[in-house]
Amino acid sequence: MTAAAAGDPAGGGLFVVFEGGDGAGKSTQAALLARRLEAHGRTVCQTFEPGHSAVGRQIRRLVLDPASGDIAPRAEALLYAADKAQHVHQVVRPALERGEVVVSDRYVDSMIAYQGAGRAVELDQVADLAWWAVGRLRPDLTVLLDVSVDQAVATKVAPDRIEQAGLDFHRRVRDHLLALAAADPERYLVLDGRQPIDAIAQTVAQRVDRLLAQSALSEL
Amino acid sequence: MTAAAAGDPAGGGLFVVFEGGDGAGKSTQAALLARRLEAHGRTVCQTFEPGHSAVGRQIRRLVLDPASGDIAPRAEALLYAADKAQHVHQVVRPALERGEVVVSDRYVDSMIAYQGAGRAVELDQVADLAWWAVGRLRPDLTVLLDVSVDQAVATKVAPDRIEQAGLDFHRRVRDHLLALAAADPERYLVLDGRQPIDAIAQTVAQRVDRLLAQSALSEL
Repeated sequence: MTAAAAGDPAGGGLFVVFEGGDGAGKSTQAALLARRLEAHGRTVCQTFEPGHSAVGRQIRRLVLDPASGDIAPRAEALLYAADKAQHVHQVVRPALERGEVVVSDRYVDSMIAYQGAGRAVELDQVADLAWWAVGRLRPDLTVLLDVSVDQAVATKVAPDRIEQAGLDFHRRVRDHLLALAAADPERYLVLDGRQPIDAIAQTVAQRVDRLLAQSALSEL
Repeated sequence: MTAAAAGDPAGGGLFVVFEGGDGAGKSTQAALLARRLEAHGRTVCQTFEPGHSAVGRQIRRLVLDPASGDIAPRAEALLYAADKAQHVHQVVRPALERGEVVVSDRYVDSMIAYQGAGRAVELDQVADLAWWAVGRLRPDLTVLLDVSVDQAVATKVAPDRIEQAGLDFHRRVRDHLLALAAADPERYLVLDGRQPIDAIAQTVAQRVDRLLAQSALSEL
């Protein structure tokens, strides 16, 4: 079940990703999982996309800088893909090869969902690009923290960002993320992001513990 | 024969690209062609890759900046592809749609040849990426100014850059460019870059005049 056992060249670590809309609790849950694993003696590489490398930060600045003006949709998709390629090359894969648990706040699914929801580039083309960029390195587990866009607005979770880009856009992002999870249930854990933080953390911990146990068995 | 007649959405202009190794005379010939066409009353958009857009300049700086450190081969290919996507979106396609003659110093073939010669990313994957980035917008004519690497070194054409990256690398670049031209002779004009400047300019002008005449006929 680990990145290694899946036939990937990246060593004996475990790769866990948190996905979900803005304000769904990804960074909180990623931090809780990392602290819990560390308390159990595991070495954890806690990371995020986009932008967690020197090159990635510059790419992110370029995409978000108003001075960049009108960025072509394909150029934007290629820049985000470059960020992913660099992140996997420099952060994720080396940590997995050292046998660490990598916990990432967003990964390929976010790029597919956000770029695809923008509709300027076709979804399957974005997916091809993103998976090529990361050398098809798949997470062992993706935890999707699902919050309906109406709930997020009603409870004032990140309302500015959601209202700014339009409710329809965020509904499409959510639908894409749910569809990706539904297509591969073995590698996904879909949780209601409105549950109590501790309850979510507990469910995630159980699933990760099971993966680590399987991984230890497979190394015997 | 024009970009328009090839079924491409970009309007009635003509798209001419100069390719070749460093020091082969591309920028000289591009400028001579542009001045000649302007003297005959055509509006010319003279441009270059990589880096001829605000976003492109930042991408180029990022790739060349030693502070970027170890850039993943796929990240580098994606960044160059993003530069191309932006260049076509912002410079090339709008000029063609205005009916101008676009004369570019380097285009997709350079990316394929240089990235492919580096061998870190497979040639067909680089080609797919580059052609996707530019929405498959093909030049009406690519002029390949061919100079053997040994000649370039012997005559001290850009010897520093050639020696720095290694003779083998530059031989592979040249071989790739010649192979691309051989695969589609109708769209290429391969000239010995060691000929006198005026002789090359004359041959290029004749071929471009013929394309413009055909283009004018096709619009009747």
